Amino acid sequence: MDQFAVRDGELVVGGLSLSELAAHAGGTPFFAYDRALLDARMRELRETLPARIELHYAIKANPHPELVRHLAARVDGLDVASGGELALALQAGCSAAAISFAGPGKSRDELEAAVAAGVLLNIESHREARELADIAARGGRAARVAVRVNPDFELKSSGMRMGGGAKPFGVDAEAVPALLGEINRMGLAFEGFHIFAGSQNLRADAIVEAQRLSFELAVRLAEHASAPVRVLNLGGGFGIPYFPGDSRLDLAPIADNLATLLDEADTRLPGASLALELGRYLVGEAGVYVCRVVDRKESRGQVFLVCDGGLNHHLAASGNFGQVIRKNFPVAIGNRMDAPRTLVANVVGPLCTPLDVLAERMTLADAQPGDLVVVFQSGAYGATASPQAFLGHPAPVEMLVG
Amino acid sequence: MDQFAVRDGELVVGGLSLSELAAHAGGTPFFAYDRALLDARMRELRETLPARIELHYAIKANPHPELVRHLAARVDGLDVASGGELALALQAGCSAAAISFAGPGKSRDELEAAVAAGVLLNIESHREARELADIAARGGRAARVAVRVNPDFELKSSGMRMGGGAKPFGVDAEAVPALLGEINRMGLAFEGFHIFAGSQNLRADAIVEAQRLSFELAVRLAEHASAPVRVLNLGGGFGIPYFPGDSRLDLAPIADNLATLLDEADTRLPGASLALELGRYLVGEAGVYVCRVVDRKESRGQVFLVCDGGLNHHLAASGNFGQVIRKNFPVAIGNRMDAPRTLVANVVGPLCTPLDVLAERMTLADAQPGDLVVVFQSGAYGATASPQAFLGHPAPVEMLVG
Repeated sequence: MDQFAVRDGELVVGGLSLSELAAHAGGTPFFAYDRALLDARMRELRETLPARIELHYAIKANPHPELVRHLAARVDGLDVASGGELALALQAGCSAAAISFAGPGKSRDELEAAVAAGVLLNIESHREARELADIAARGGRAARVAVRVNPDFELKSSGMRMGGGAKPFGVDAEAVPALLGEINRMGLAFEGFHIFAGSQNLRADAIVEAQRLSFELAVRLAEHASAPVRVLNLGGGFGIPYFPGDSRLDLAPIADNLATLLDEADTRLPGASLALELGRYLVGEAGVYVCRVVDRKESRGQVFLVCDGGLNHHLAASGNFGQVIRKNFPVAIGNRMDAPRTLVANVVGPLCTPLDVLAERMTLADAQPGDLVVVFQSGAYGATASPQAFLGHPAPVEMLVG
Repeated sequence: MDQFAVRDGELVVGGLSLSELAAHAGGTPFFAYDRALLDARMRELRETLPARIELHYAIKANPHPELVRHLAARVDGLDVASGGELALALQAGCSAAAISFAGPGKSRDELEAAVAAGVLLNIESHREARELADIAARGGRAARVAVRVNPDFELKSSGMRMGGGAKPFGVDAEAVPALLGEINRMGLAFEGFHIFAGSQNLRADAIVEAQRLSFELAVRLAEHASAPVRVLNLGGGFGIPYFPGDSRLDLAPIADNLATLLDEADTRLPGASLALELGRYLVGEAGVYVCRVVDRKESRGQVFLVCDGGLNHHLAASGNFGQVIRKNFPVAIGNRMDAPRTLVANVVGPLCTPLDVLAERMTLADAQPGDLVVVFQSGAYGATASPQAFLGHPAPVEMLVG
């Protein structure tokens, strides 16, 4: 992990050393998200991908309000997955026109809020179409809708498969023509498709293939729509490296493919914009989780660094968030970055459960109580994806810095 | 699951049907904990186990304040694992004398709070002993301490192993004599031992063996103590059935064994009381999680019941809390308890992640939107063990009822 500088042996995030950040946070544990790294990632994407590709941020990856506000001013749209995220996106200053709402179990209240705000609703079932027609009939406003499609292919080598096979997400590709007919009859304002095949993928060829297949699928389905496709959301899937052996995603082939798709879209989906929905890729590498070593113990030949935070703040790093086999996130002793790594230790949290592990038999700088443990790649699926109330410890502070 | 009555086809918890409970909660999702079942479980334990066995409640299993208050009046002690849980136990009306505090990473602040309150501290490292001596030196009050022992054996067939091998919990049995010497020199008030080998065990023979081994270990270690053992916490480990094929724990052999240990303690640990620390076993079966079907969808031959809550409220039921292989918790359509089970369906939550599954291809009553899904065995490790903020849905209501 080389995205952060080191000053006097201490990791620097957003211009401040970890000790300074701990002082700002009133102690440990905390998450810090680096503005400059967020901006650098956006810049890299803008410079590498075709200019006409729209970039959306999927709030679910990290809904920290200041971070959402920062990104809202830099992306072309925000994607929300609940009424709570919708409110957050609006409060962050995003225009309703640039917000889209997906989610397999949208409640009546959420649908009403989305229609009232005027955001784009990704319809995921016939029930949602009927509810939206009913809301429009009562309120006189036609919902702006896209259809979320469960594709007839999978994103290969993906961390999580969001499409292909039987899924609760979206409507099966083969059932979309019937739904489009229903949308037309109901007078909903059709605007496009949302096709999300998977997430956390490090293979450009797999992403290229999924984007190509999604595009072809959208072209086929567009024939059944009553209005032209104005937006095609190709999903995301861009992964970040977490584990030894993970190689960084190569954007170049993806950029080339998107350029080709944009050209084709000019004739095959005229007037349509192509959007990517990125979450983890925009924010994951810009964030760190920092906790403090409270105790150092030896037990039967192993060293344990017991910290003031663990799975209650960072479930993914503990290996209990979808991972089949637990692997260590990148972890270091953040105030001894220049020290040789001579200590093989387990880094654990303060909870009375053997699940509370941040690093297992990892080689680290020789650490003592008071030292700061840093978990990298923690800008996405951190604080909000963790059981913060478990065992009654304080919640972590979250800070956008730099 | 037959602990709850059914009235007019609806499950009844605490005397109220699920619909009535939903009205009380202002909607779904909610957790409901049944007072009568909590009391029945306590009664069963009191009637089956020897009267002299002390029963403690481990708050971590479910820290709902009303539930803790209810149990505090019925158990012989509360076991806490953080400063937050300590405050909760005191607020629940528990006397400090009946509270013990364990946890591998107790902070200085937590140790100070525990000494100030006068609770029993389970020392888990030399560092803690030194900090307590320092606190006593500054404040003039000697901490009440027990030693948490990492035993030299494991609890066989246990859901989670808390002791044996290299562990962050407690002090290795072979290192305890040296720690006892240090405690003596420091003038801390030694009161006993805490030996917790594992949790969620359904085999009485395994628990009997662990309790026997723990007792023998305590007798051996007591020879090195400067004061008699006043309390021996034998841990818990009592499991509840979750999955098909799980058979209920048989308390009878455990009761017999404890009677024998009590007799032996009269001569081998004179003056010591024996305590069990139970969490899940006291509360797990008394609670249900209830959410509502928002949508019913078919995708490529499978039925999905999409609900208004899922892993954000009940991570354990989604299979993402320490389970190696996902198994279905007991789930039913709570307002169609008398209907034949004719529908094979996946029950999923509202989150945009394939991890959000409450039941996979389960045979249920034919369900429609509006119906109530009930997840049984949800009184322990439910709301607080879940990432409630994930994707921005409302937190579940929790209610102690009946």
